[in-house]
Amino acid sequence: MAARAVVLLSGGLDSTTALAVARAEGYDCYALSFEYGQRHARELASARRVATSLGTEEHLVLRLDLRAIGGSALTAEIPVPKGRSAETIGTGVPVTYVPARNTIFLSHALAWAEVLGAQDIFIGVNVLDASGYPDCRPEYIEAFERLANLATRAGVERRSRFRIHTPLIALSKAEIIRRGMELGVDFALTWTCYAPEADGRPCGLCDACLLRKKGFAEAGLADPVPS
Amino acid sequence: MAARAVVLLSGGLDSTTALAVARAEGYDCYALSFEYGQRHARELASARRVATSLGTEEHLVLRLDLRAIGGSALTAEIPVPKGRSAETIGTGVPVTYVPARNTIFLSHALAWAEVLGAQDIFIGVNVLDASGYPDCRPEYIEAFERLANLATRAGVERRSRFRIHTPLIALSKAEIIRRGMELGVDFALTWTCYAPEADGRPCGLCDACLLRKKGFAEAGLADPVPS
Repeated sequence: MAARAVVLLSGGLDSTTALAVARAEGYDCYALSFEYGQRHARELASARRVATSLGTEEHLVLRLDLRAIGGSALTAEIPVPKGRSAETIGTGVPVTYVPARNTIFLSHALAWAEVLGAQDIFIGVNVLDASGYPDCRPEYIEAFERLANLATRAGVERRSRFRIHTPLIALSKAEIIRRGMELGVDFALTWTCYAPEADGRPCGLCDACLLRKKGFAEAGLADPVPS
Repeated sequence: MAARAVVLLSGGLDSTTALAVARAEGYDCYALSFEYGQRHARELASARRVATSLGTEEHLVLRLDLRAIGGSALTAEIPVPKGRSAETIGTGVPVTYVPARNTIFLSHALAWAEVLGAQDIFIGVNVLDASGYPDCRPEYIEAFERLANLATRAGVERRSRFRIHTPLIALSKAEIIRRGMELGVDFALTWTCYAPEADGRPCGLCDACLLRKKGFAEAGLADPVPS
């Protein structure tokens, strides 16, 4: 039996590629997504299609009420910035940062991993071509891994050790796209935009769309989900 | 204006006393509870009464679906142990441990604290007379505090520092009860039992009831919520 891994899956480029990496490394994958009150809950339909397409053992979608906490353009009545320059994106923490979101997501991944007997958790964070989110940095991930091994039954019984895998952390968006392509990812299934248009198309102007556009351009490829 | 604190409040003895301590230290308190699929959701009615009685600014109850993850006698079809001896309780991790629960709770507290501009989070964990849960130990709390200061906007901008307060961590249950009494806590409002009887009374035999009973006995006081 292959080792099990829990993979955080939003349905975007990065988490989809992270799932493809985990599959390629031979893990039986348990995909975990969240309906957390995000503006772009549209991404969950993509997550479902990606999970099926890449062959996960199970795909769990948990509900969280992060709207009750607010504090982000993704979960409160704060406009999503549009048309920012490439130089601006990634400098400072943008209003699309959702307070403690990755900590909340990883905590649930840890809980599920413990129940599944999995020691491996994959998250598609990256720091190059990223949005300036504090909870995507390597020092944050290391601190979470340390916490995970104190927080759990395994931490007391010293039977196993959790590892947080970040296969994309040092890749540019173009490299992530190329890596995904090599692994057979169908990026037509993915969803990136934070603020979809009324007709359901990506806006093409939010930070997430702009980083995606830049990535496909640098990879010399056409985006199968045009904005 | 007083500083704000987020206080995790289950409605039990410990978190109620932790809230009373935070109030006594002069914080404006924002109480946070979870309806997470626990068997003893009865505790939430107590949390509401405690939050009102101790004068919180706000009491937020968030829903989480920890039943979908399972793995604990509190969230899955696993019997709650009854009638264990005092020597047995606290040795090893019991089946009432909910995987990564305190990490999930503290992550949400961190998110809310960040939105409220609070730097202080109170949690009523204790290690003496405790249930052997890994996520109640001082080394776990220290690791979470470290994580909190990397996970957030504050971690990047170095404007503030989160502190996780554990005012009860080194107290026995009897000492917690005495401290609560001194601070004017009405323990009649609290709820402890993991597995209430059909008539709504505490079972008197689960680990939580037994620790409560031992605490009141050692404090030389009568429990206003008899089992």
